[in-house]
Amino acid sequence: MEAEIQEKINQKTKPLGSLGRLEAIALQVAKVQKSLSPQFSKPTIVVFTGDHGLAKEAVSAYPQEVTYQMVLNFLHGGAAINVFCKANGLDLTVVDCGVIGEFSETAGLLHAKIAHGTNNSLHEPAMTSEQYQRAWQSGEKIVKDLFRSGCNLVGFGEMGIGNTSAASLIMSDLCGIPIEECYGSGTGVVGDALQHKLKILQQVQEKHGRQGESSKSLQIFGGFEIVQMSAAMLTAYECGMTLLIDGFISTVAYLAAYEMQERLADNAIFSHVSGESGHRKLLNYLQAEPLLDLQLRLGEGSACAVAYPIVRNSLDFFNGMASFASAGVSQ
Amino acid sequence: MEAEIQEKINQKTKPLGSLGRLEAIALQVAKVQKSLSPQFSKPTIVVFTGDHGLAKEAVSAYPQEVTYQMVLNFLHGGAAINVFCKANGLDLTVVDCGVIGEFSETAGLLHAKIAHGTNNSLHEPAMTSEQYQRAWQSGEKIVKDLFRSGCNLVGFGEMGIGNTSAASLIMSDLCGIPIEECYGSGTGVVGDALQHKLKILQQVQEKHGRQGESSKSLQIFGGFEIVQMSAAMLTAYECGMTLLIDGFISTVAYLAAYEMQERLADNAIFSHVSGESGHRKLLNYLQAEPLLDLQLRLGEGSACAVAYPIVRNSLDFFNGMASFASAGVSQ
Repeated sequence: MEAEIQEKINQKTKPLGSLGRLEAIALQVAKVQKSLSPQFSKPTIVVFTGDHGLAKEAVSAYPQEVTYQMVLNFLHGGAAINVFCKANGLDLTVVDCGVIGEFSETAGLLHAKIAHGTNNSLHEPAMTSEQYQRAWQSGEKIVKDLFRSGCNLVGFGEMGIGNTSAASLIMSDLCGIPIEECYGSGTGVVGDALQHKLKILQQVQEKHGRQGESSKSLQIFGGFEIVQMSAAMLTAYECGMTLLIDGFISTVAYLAAYEMQERLADNAIFSHVSGESGHRKLLNYLQAEPLLDLQLRLGEGSACAVAYPIVRNSLDFFNGMASFASAGVSQ
Repeated sequence: MEAEIQEKINQKTKPLGSLGRLEAIALQVAKVQKSLSPQFSKPTIVVFTGDHGLAKEAVSAYPQEVTYQMVLNFLHGGAAINVFCKANGLDLTVVDCGVIGEFSETAGLLHAKIAHGTNNSLHEPAMTSEQYQRAWQSGEKIVKDLFRSGCNLVGFGEMGIGNTSAASLIMSDLCGIPIEECYGSGTGVVGDALQHKLKILQQVQEKHGRQGESSKSLQIFGGFEIVQMSAAMLTAYECGMTLLIDGFISTVAYLAAYEMQERLADNAIFSHVSGESGHRKLLNYLQAEPLLDLQLRLGEGSACAVAYPIVRNSLDFFNGMASFASAGVSQ
């Protein structure tokens, strides 16, 4: 089938290979969908949100309540991800994986709260093994439901004050790369505060030691939203969907899932390399080529949404362009 | 006004600066439009097409008649640029600046033929001074008409077998960079044929000597479509429009116009860096930062069309996102 797909690409009225990465994406998605006329159906960004006990240690430039406030902002349509989804023809689902505070049964919010924030990993594992299991099952269910509704492309975004810290710890743990090369400014931590962030992360590592395995690493260092994302990504792969990976935290969730199932790479498209300093290193570790490099560092799935038209254009040319023969153009 | 625009960007519910290049584009376009709620109106890709006498010297991987055939393909909707314009909400105008062959009065084709191809610059100037003048005026008129119709964003694409050769000669001439660093594979010239292409370009340079000035360089090394593009770009700047620059040939047309009016840079957005080897060097010379790096090398304005949603998303966030105050998010 791959040869047939490639031949269809090569017969389009353009110099051979001249659509570069768009050709590679068309090939990838056609293979995922096992189709010579692949289509995206109900493409959806899912934003996984949650709070972090470690935020008590002043590792973010913003106070913890911003997670709750930003979820309300998502529900009211005022955040970047709302605007980009609307402009680019994407559905948006927001999941409360573990935000501190209660939301009323607002339309558009998916309730999957494991607890009101994780524990502070400076003193104890971020979550119990039971919480980890529930979070994992929740992530699976979210994507299974999306798949059943007819969706075949998911972009994975997140929001959670403190979650670059959790993500840096998981990256360092799973890749065996020193934390100094995995941490960064997050929402905008600089100077002494950035030194403080590093010191806290080092202390968390000293407390728990190296885990080196996805489920343990996610449980001890991690974020309910990160666990749910990892599970959701694996499920999306199993359902034969296309995965759009967002920035640093989304890529860390991918890393944890990838360590369990390397074939995940067949279905994943990396939206961008972000301004967060560990992201480029992580993409290199994964041998992943990002589509965009626009110094975005917002999260929320924003880079998935901004990159989506390029991914869609890959199918557009594959399905819509004339061939040399049909257009009567000399080859 | 710039301070007011920047303050509006900074008050959006996101970490400061976290939308990277999208913030820079929002600022740029808002300044161009002198507006705190900039909008794109009738965004249009114009594809300038023409033939080249130099194509007789076997400098392309495709025969000369492909220019004519591809114009028909544009008019029938089968080319990459048709598909991308349709998918991304762009109008498309195709201009015959000097294709060999006659087109009937087909809808969608703008007739601005200066001659049936340029002269062969290996033996004589690509065009006479009178032809150059007519081509320049035609480019001006095309954009003036677009502007009058309500369009305020133009993407500049082209098609013409042999035109990477003409563009390389103009780049080398205007930048004073050796032709060896300005030429490349074009549509896919490799091996001995690429060596032959270089030898021909060197002979053209020996024949005419260094010009070092836009109008002379454009006239002697050529391309009716390149001259019309340069004029169209300058006119778009004068009308206060936003310019989307495509790949190597489009950037060379920009270079020639920029040498006449450096303020052109205020209004220009560079869609991408292409796979054509001289393009990166030319962008560096112009201190221009491309949006995309997807190994596209198709021309036709295809990278303008693929990059356009990102440009539009810049205005989307600027106009559509909530502020910290309006959303009740802690800053």
